[in-house]
Amino acid sequence: MAVIYDRVALIGLGLIASSMAHAMKKWGLAGSIAGYAKTEATREAALELGFCDEVFATAGDAVKNADLVILAVPVGVMGAVAAEIRPHLKPGATVTDVGSVKQAVVEAVGPHVPDGVDFVPGHPLAGTEHSGPRSGFATLFQNRFTLLTPGDARPEAVARLRALWEGMGALVEEMEADHHDLVLAVTSHTPHLIAYTMVGVADHLRRVTESEVIKYSAAGFRDFTRIAASDPTMWRDVFLTNKEATLDILGRFTEELFALQRAIRMGDGDELFNYFTRTRAIRRGIIEAGQDTAAPDFGRTKADGP
Amino acid sequence: MAVIYDRVALIGLGLIASSMAHAMKKWGLAGSIAGYAKTEATREAALELGFCDEVFATAGDAVKNADLVILAVPVGVMGAVAAEIRPHLKPGATVTDVGSVKQAVVEAVGPHVPDGVDFVPGHPLAGTEHSGPRSGFATLFQNRFTLLTPGDARPEAVARLRALWEGMGALVEEMEADHHDLVLAVTSHTPHLIAYTMVGVADHLRRVTESEVIKYSAAGFRDFTRIAASDPTMWRDVFLTNKEATLDILGRFTEELFALQRAIRMGDGDELFNYFTRTRAIRRGIIEAGQDTAAPDFGRTKADGP
Repeated sequence: MAVIYDRVALIGLGLIASSMAHAMKKWGLAGSIAGYAKTEATREAALELGFCDEVFATAGDAVKNADLVILAVPVGVMGAVAAEIRPHLKPGATVTDVGSVKQAVVEAVGPHVPDGVDFVPGHPLAGTEHSGPRSGFATLFQNRFTLLTPGDARPEAVARLRALWEGMGALVEEMEADHHDLVLAVTSHTPHLIAYTMVGVADHLRRVTESEVIKYSAAGFRDFTRIAASDPTMWRDVFLTNKEATLDILGRFTEELFALQRAIRMGDGDELFNYFTRTRAIRRGIIEAGQDTAAPDFGRTKADGP
Repeated sequence: MAVIYDRVALIGLGLIASSMAHAMKKWGLAGSIAGYAKTEATREAALELGFCDEVFATAGDAVKNADLVILAVPVGVMGAVAAEIRPHLKPGATVTDVGSVKQAVVEAVGPHVPDGVDFVPGHPLAGTEHSGPRSGFATLFQNRFTLLTPGDARPEAVARLRALWEGMGALVEEMEADHHDLVLAVTSHTPHLIAYTMVGVADHLRRVTESEVIKYSAAGFRDFTRIAASDPTMWRDVFLTNKEATLDILGRFTEELFALQRAIRMGDGDELFNYFTRTRAIRRGIIEAGQDTAAPDFGRTKADGP
């Protein structure tokens, strides 16, 4: 595939950034990749693993001469990083991000983007419960959606970023930032909060020893613990910055849960059976949409690393 | 491996029963396998797939001459089935079951087990979101726990059933029936109810179209839909028969959820960060206990079928 950006700067070198770097290298999408991370250990890992060509101790140095700057830091620090890199951005460059929340990023980063630079917020719907520079792999975005919320960025800048994501195997869609935040509150943010809560309940329960909970973690709970093992900083920022939509969906969730709890208490088997039958149909929709498979390995075939 | 039971009768031929049959065949643990299912289509599938040697149109006929009778029907009908097979049980036989709840099964089945027959309730902590005779595969129980709640069954009957499960690759533990129900309420039953609820919320939400929820079902929600796609009859019976423990754990869950919801509303980032950090540690415990792996495919390597 052809080079899409001569020089790419990654600000933050965790799971998403390192996976993007591996993917850009694998498919020849970037001429060179510069990286910035807060700790020297992370910067050294990037060089050791070879997914960055150069690393820098400041974000400002990393973005110099970059045609694309990718902000891959927790949502809560995006604004400060944007302010820091502002004087060093190359005219005509594009700035994007990979944050799980978009409206808050638009508000935090937007004011720091100078004239002549395009800001195209983005969010790859991909991840694992692992974090850090050693957790990335090139195929993380394959056949997964990346959502762009371009606002008033120039169409040619959006098209070029889209080509990069498609080059990494992603399916790209565009939408408004606030709509993105509501959709994700349903499909990702609230489910994560619930999983964290359930794991917390198990942790506090004294009559069932922790070792039993762990030992007999049948399918339900085991899947929750995987979700609830995601990066704490990232998720703290998600809930603080997508507060309204998350609280809205949580309210609806509590209403539904109370209705089912009542059905259990009243012994209303028909209500439970009908509810569970409806939810099963949604699963079939997801399989038909190609975002998962019906196979016993749940479609999670091993990627090419790590 | 040596034959452990000359003749095994499977009452019900769904995911668990067909997987047990495949496993007993694969490792030579049963001399012959008789099967009963309510519908002719299921009985025919069992013969066509070859996991039963003979099938019968009544449970009573199926259990004749069986050394081991395995009740693999929904918990809600176990009592009726036990009453039906009672006159046909071979003296010295063992009856077991594979229900997800144990105290209710003990109460429903126990009174129908005649003198000279041992009743050893059991529960394999294994499954997929699929159901029916075509969903089974021999390796379903490999390295997964099977819990036995033997009560006052003879030790030699318990040891023999344990040998069968171990022959199918399971890790076997014994405990009291009521303790089983509490542990499972935490690790499986409540997580399933929560997953059903979250999927139901998404289904009702009008501002986000169903197609969007399905299309952008990032990790969190996708995992929930898989859990929420499990057999509705089985789960209805679980909640109706493990009512007290499930309501107890649900109450604790709601308390915790409200505390986190308040932290979001108040913008208390430290509270969220500390909570998420604690839950992450539990995940590490599960990986160390060998019930999941840290690899990107989540340890779900494809089994040998279907």
